[in-house]
Amino acid sequence: MDGTKSEVDVYRRRLLAAGTAGAAAGLGAWTPASLAQSAGAKPLPAFAAFKDANRLIVHSASGIETKREAFGTSGITDTDILFVRNNLGAPDAAITANPDAWQIEFDGVTNPRKLSVADLKRLGLANVAMVLQCSGNGRGFFGHKASGSQWKVGAAGNTLWSGVPVKAVVAELGGVRGGMRYMTSTGGETIPPGVDPKTVVVERSVPWTEMENAILAWELNGEPLPLAHGGPLRLVIPGYYGVNNVKYVKRLAFTEAQTGANIQSSGYRVRPIGDKGAPTQPTMWEMNLKSFVTHPAGGQMRAGLTQVHGVAYSGSSPVGAVEVSVDGGKTWRAARFFGPDLGRYAWRQFVLPVILPAGSYEITSRAIAEDGEVQPELRVENERAYAHNGWRDHAVKVTVA
Amino acid sequence: MDGTKSEVDVYRRRLLAAGTAGAAAGLGAWTPASLAQSAGAKPLPAFAAFKDANRLIVHSASGIETKREAFGTSGITDTDILFVRNNLGAPDAAITANPDAWQIEFDGVTNPRKLSVADLKRLGLANVAMVLQCSGNGRGFFGHKASGSQWKVGAAGNTLWSGVPVKAVVAELGGVRGGMRYMTSTGGETIPPGVDPKTVVVERSVPWTEMENAILAWELNGEPLPLAHGGPLRLVIPGYYGVNNVKYVKRLAFTEAQTGANIQSSGYRVRPIGDKGAPTQPTMWEMNLKSFVTHPAGGQMRAGLTQVHGVAYSGSSPVGAVEVSVDGGKTWRAARFFGPDLGRYAWRQFVLPVILPAGSYEITSRAIAEDGEVQPELRVENERAYAHNGWRDHAVKVTVA
Repeated sequence: MDGTKSEVDVYRRRLLAAGTAGAAAGLGAWTPASLAQSAGAKPLPAFAAFKDANRLIVHSASGIETKREAFGTSGITDTDILFVRNNLGAPDAAITANPDAWQIEFDGVTNPRKLSVADLKRLGLANVAMVLQCSGNGRGFFGHKASGSQWKVGAAGNTLWSGVPVKAVVAELGGVRGGMRYMTSTGGETIPPGVDPKTVVVERSVPWTEMENAILAWELNGEPLPLAHGGPLRLVIPGYYGVNNVKYVKRLAFTEAQTGANIQSSGYRVRPIGDKGAPTQPTMWEMNLKSFVTHPAGGQMRAGLTQVHGVAYSGSSPVGAVEVSVDGGKTWRAARFFGPDLGRYAWRQFVLPVILPAGSYEITSRAIAEDGEVQPELRVENERAYAHNGWRDHAVKVTVA
Repeated sequence: MDGTKSEVDVYRRRLLAAGTAGAAAGLGAWTPASLAQSAGAKPLPAFAAFKDANRLIVHSASGIETKREAFGTSGITDTDILFVRNNLGAPDAAITANPDAWQIEFDGVTNPRKLSVADLKRLGLANVAMVLQCSGNGRGFFGHKASGSQWKVGAAGNTLWSGVPVKAVVAELGGVRGGMRYMTSTGGETIPPGVDPKTVVVERSVPWTEMENAILAWELNGEPLPLAHGGPLRLVIPGYYGVNNVKYVKRLAFTEAQTGANIQSSGYRVRPIGDKGAPTQPTMWEMNLKSFVTHPAGGQMRAGLTQVHGVAYSGSSPVGAVEVSVDGGKTWRAARFFGPDLGRYAWRQFVLPVILPAGSYEITSRAIAEDGEVQPELRVENERAYAHNGWRDHAVKVTVA
């Protein structure tokens, strides 16, 4: 969808038509979590009403961000505060009432067929910790007013998924047919009437070899996968930007070419400011090397010893080290990792104890990958404000008194 | 407290005096989660009203168990389904309104003093994954009707805690005074008037060397520690039974002797059936080697391939392997671990794919520690029905059609 005007219009129409009635029928007996929010904040949409509004920034009904200070230090981002980004209005909540009955069609394999989640649960089991991150995370730091939610750091979270390995399903279906180069998956959203499906369908292609790592997941952070995060079934591709992790997945096909859906052919393409999206431009697949400080999150602090902490991650070479600066990047000190190592697709938590006398500080971090790559200082300007991993913009300003 | 009549009476008095009014004032605007429970089930108490009643067994207001089928396969037990066991009624929820203001007194160190949680947050930071388990988990499998909640497998969960290492606080306070042999911590519950504090206070002693591993935690599973699990501050001792992980901890002292509180001197002692508790008997410190199957959880299944999975853990030597039997222990096959290794105090998830033709099965697991110890077949009979790790009682019966 790529955050175009047509997407927003479609979403609004859908919300007007169904959203309010759905909220009254479904979660109406609950006090909306939004009542706990600060005055003037937008309310949580019905499908995300279970979330903790105090620790979130609601950009829109399809864009909900975790506050920097809400991440905590447990290593996993609780579902109550995990960001939400939808490219198309979520399907009716009824699809999660009986998750085992959800059907998914497999194609591009020797024996194409439909399988239910109940079938999938018999075929294999995997559990992976991974960073889920929106391609536009950090958009709010760009200067050219790119369309879409103005995320700062919180369109990302570290999450635990479990489901069946895609490769176990493929083996059951006789293997991938010859000549296939992509794994193409399709979301189960309803296409609004009168709209060309190609312009709005959430359908993404990734290199077919990602089937080695991918899982079809029915569980998130110890609970049945909620609608807000793609329940009853979501394709999960560790190391890849959020959009590739297709929600309510109803079809998974191995294909010769990438899908022609707009979300693949022109959306989620990195190009110079002002250019239109095109299939020749880089697409948002593997996440780049990134880190940010989660504490302090800015503002005023008392002088003395403080634990500066944050998170670091990468979709490609694992993070090997993190450095922290309290003077806006003039000097750096090595931070220490803490907490369990949840694997190469998860984020690592880092901490550096610092003594801060009264004064002004600009605190930031930079990750260093095992292959030697260093997180860059500056963002790469691009039309849709994707993939921001520059450490300068991610710094927090702190006044110590 | 040890589950005696006096404990239950004290709790009931407290509930009558304060509980109902508190519920109306605090969470009264919410539909009680208990409405979603099956008919006849006990309601969740107010301090645990946020939990998912459908996936819990409410034994009493101070004993809430996770259903075997609710554990899922994410590796971490979500707080919404984590068991609750209180030895004394929880303090007023107001103590979690401003967690940073909570005070804890340190003694038995060179420079004894009180520190607030805000102070502690400056001194250090750690994050640990660990099994939290009630000493009486498995009591429901014993045959002699021991008093206390009749837990089956669900008075245990795998949890992420973060806080300050106790050793960092001790270093700040000049170190442990000479001659101290125990770390003794005291809970912040209100002692009901007219009751001898010694008979009800939650105060536990563990070997002082456990300060190397222990943390004072303010966060559980990515969220500020709720009252139901000991917020605003809980002492967490990885590898030790739940009772030692003192909730609402208000005092931590290094002491020459174990506390004389009943909960230490006579409660939580392993002794022959019929005997009274005494300080000479083994106390509930390190957890023993244990595993259980979480799927299937019993009942009827369709014939064919099934993923048998479960969890394995130990408070001492790490788990090295797990075997699964589908014939009640006649034959065993090696299971495979899956998901991230969260460290030696966490549980490991295991899975074994099995093809089950029509018939009757008794499915169970046994863990093997790295030091060669094998999880035993049978329970060790004891008055309070503690520490059950026998694999036979933990088996599930399944009929395949």
